[in-house]
Amino acid sequence: MDLFYAYVNKHQDDFVQKLKEVVAIKSVSSDPSLRDEVFKMGAWLHREMERLGASTKIVELGLQEGENPGLKLPPVILVYGHYDVQPALKEDGWNTDPFVLTEDSSHRLIGRGSTDDKGPVLGWLLVIEVFRQLELEFPVNLIMCFEGMEESGSEGLDDVINREAEGFFKGTDAVCISDNYWLGKTKPSLTYGLRGVSYFHVTVKGPKADLHSGVFGGTVHEPMTDLIHILGKLVSCDGKIMVPGIMNQVAPVTEEEESSYNGLEFSMDTLHEALGAKNSIHSNVKDTLMHRWRFPSLSIHGIEGAFYSPGEKTVIPAKVTGKFSIRTVPDMDPDNVTQLVVQHIESEFTKLKSKNTISIKCVGAGKPWCSSFNHWNFVAGRKAVEKVFNQSPDLTREGGSIPVTLTFENALKKNVLLLPMGACDDGAHSINEKLDRRNFIEGIKLLGTYLDELRQIQAE
Amino acid sequence: MDLFYAYVNKHQDDFVQKLKEVVAIKSVSSDPSLRDEVFKMGAWLHREMERLGASTKIVELGLQEGENPGLKLPPVILVYGHYDVQPALKEDGWNTDPFVLTEDSSHRLIGRGSTDDKGPVLGWLLVIEVFRQLELEFPVNLIMCFEGMEESGSEGLDDVINREAEGFFKGTDAVCISDNYWLGKTKPSLTYGLRGVSYFHVTVKGPKADLHSGVFGGTVHEPMTDLIHILGKLVSCDGKIMVPGIMNQVAPVTEEEESSYNGLEFSMDTLHEALGAKNSIHSNVKDTLMHRWRFPSLSIHGIEGAFYSPGEKTVIPAKVTGKFSIRTVPDMDPDNVTQLVVQHIESEFTKLKSKNTISIKCVGAGKPWCSSFNHWNFVAGRKAVEKVFNQSPDLTREGGSIPVTLTFENALKKNVLLLPMGACDDGAHSINEKLDRRNFIEGIKLLGTYLDELRQIQAE
Repeated sequence: MDLFYAYVNKHQDDFVQKLKEVVAIKSVSSDPSLRDEVFKMGAWLHREMERLGASTKIVELGLQEGENPGLKLPPVILVYGHYDVQPALKEDGWNTDPFVLTEDSSHRLIGRGSTDDKGPVLGWLLVIEVFRQLELEFPVNLIMCFEGMEESGSEGLDDVINREAEGFFKGTDAVCISDNYWLGKTKPSLTYGLRGVSYFHVTVKGPKADLHSGVFGGTVHEPMTDLIHILGKLVSCDGKIMVPGIMNQVAPVTEEEESSYNGLEFSMDTLHEALGAKNSIHSNVKDTLMHRWRFPSLSIHGIEGAFYSPGEKTVIPAKVTGKFSIRTVPDMDPDNVTQLVVQHIESEFTKLKSKNTISIKCVGAGKPWCSSFNHWNFVAGRKAVEKVFNQSPDLTREGGSIPVTLTFENALKKNVLLLPMGACDDGAHSINEKLDRRNFIEGIKLLGTYLDELRQIQAE
Repeated sequence: MDLFYAYVNKHQDDFVQKLKEVVAIKSVSSDPSLRDEVFKMGAWLHREMERLGASTKIVELGLQEGENPGLKLPPVILVYGHYDVQPALKEDGWNTDPFVLTEDSSHRLIGRGSTDDKGPVLGWLLVIEVFRQLELEFPVNLIMCFEGMEESGSEGLDDVINREAEGFFKGTDAVCISDNYWLGKTKPSLTYGLRGVSYFHVTVKGPKADLHSGVFGGTVHEPMTDLIHILGKLVSCDGKIMVPGIMNQVAPVTEEEESSYNGLEFSMDTLHEALGAKNSIHSNVKDTLMHRWRFPSLSIHGIEGAFYSPGEKTVIPAKVTGKFSIRTVPDMDPDNVTQLVVQHIESEFTKLKSKNTISIKCVGAGKPWCSSFNHWNFVAGRKAVEKVFNQSPDLTREGGSIPVTLTFENALKKNVLLLPMGACDDGAHSINEKLDRRNFIEGIKLLGTYLDELRQIQAE
């Protein structure tokens, strides 16, 4: 790979220029007036891929593009990324025009989509470019799945993946997604787990319409009072879930897993800086990250139907819906979680002896995901990190979910590796989103080396 | 008063026509585009009062009009009403045009402002009209204070009342306000008490900005969890205030007061009908009305800063403000109530051992009001009810507040009587607001007789 690295180093300004070109396309999927830009971005990729010799397939319900260069070498690797971005306006507080990639004196490439996810998508294309320019044999069969609606809920994508599992994606040996971030700012990560989430609505209903608290206060069972008492039975102020049976489902921590928490690029200061406050529950890194990654949590998000505006209103709301969610981890099962939550709330509501009525509903459940970091797909990733960055990667999980991960795993029954390019402070979705020049350039090397390591592992 | 009654009976259609005329003026004080209509309504009253021989004074900061016919007979009675109305659109669900007074087959006079408060305001003018037409001596000196901004917070009125206490209102012997409703549908009421209200904001602050529950759930003290636990320590589901010391301030029930609860036109069915549900806390009329009128209550209105829309959002709100209020009764003192609430919440928050911060603020406090129903002003009212309706009135309180009542009492140091014209089912502020023809016509007789009874009592 030395020739590859030298070429990347020599052409890094061209590569940054190319990133600038794609950042300038305002592919904001959530803004209908910019939908043409999303298509424009898709067309740009399409053109670029054809130029690189890829055979592509544009799939309705969003654009999906892929490459199968016809090289006969195993393995077949499917990579996923997205080319749409979050909305961004200079007025939001950006220091520079969000759609003009601007490099500052610290070599931060600032622009919407730089790190999420145009940098990584472009990275895959540039890997091909470099191999072609060097007239080197491409190390794997590469299938690319790039989406233009990720920031708008990826509507339609699951259907496409399931449909193409036996079509365009047939024969895939492993999957790689570069759409998350390093745990730290300088040390690369491989990500092997994600929490799931079960979202609940609990509704208490009383009178037929809102009441005036002057006329009715003290004489009726108020739905809001009941709901507050119910929500108070869900989680303690130090984050312990109070629903009986939930914690029994959590997979125990293995010794191997436990040791993976040593040496991570993370400190309590990093956390407090992100919070802008020292209101962390746990006092050390290991407990904190375990509670972010591999233990469940319960958050109360808000109440629908009650008074929420500034000012004062003396209303007794007639019907209020509490919204809360549980972040789930292996081996929690969504159906079982729902059953325990419903049982617990119904039993607590009975104790209130209220004449109001209650209903509880799980309105959405995504399963947790956890892969084996000893799989050959991860071994290739680790070796690539070691070659390019001269250090072992942090083995991380994420507390949130990236639903497409499970969709690929379930549809293709193959191992999925999350191989991030950006750093923890890139500020995806925020103002002044950036990708460090180092992350972009070394990241291209990382993606290329990962493919080469896959070739070597499969050749063994 | 027989001549008076006969005249009223004979001219009742003319009087309804006049009510129709004023309902047609869209004096919605909260709608700036209709502010001219409020002035038009004020001008209508002004013209009508001058026609009736009144000397008037229009006061800046809203219109205020009065009459002092120069008759030398004591007493001097100040009456208050308002000529602005709540907004109303046919599309809101009205069966008829809200600004066209329409009489249905049950003799309900349907229209915005019919009962709140154009009917009563017109009632006072028609009393004068009748006395003049009959060339009878007017029984009292009448000062009228009619306001055009009541439905928009009566801004500026307190200043006017305090300023005119020694001016236009000087020499007032008693005050009468006709701007509330009978307890029942058929039996008149005299109202002698109102609850006060102390409104609180309790704010819990954590991180500098909202957090994603995937990334931070389980690792930080969530402000929403803390707030829910705090709000759960304020009131039990059967309406008992959990703030220590509050109930010690409540004036004991006297025997005379207790007996006034017998024979009231109110039933649990009435309550359940109003609620559209059987979620009442108490099982009988007396307990229910005591808890509406003479015991404090605490209602939780909502939360500012949390998620409140339909749908799902996995946010950990950074700063949340709970809104609740306590309806207060004699002898509760607002400052003392605030002190007890703050102490209680701070002590409960300490128990939570949270690293977030809390602040509690009383953002508004109106005192409760309770008058003696044995005062000669009330005796005149009672006698008038007995003459016109052949029955004794219900002695009632209201659970809500009518702030102008205390303003008059404090500024003039005189007894205030609340003498309602409309019935409990009139639906002020609602669609299809109505005033029964009986309430309007017998109401005019009631107001005239009340003035005549005052004359007799003062002559004794």
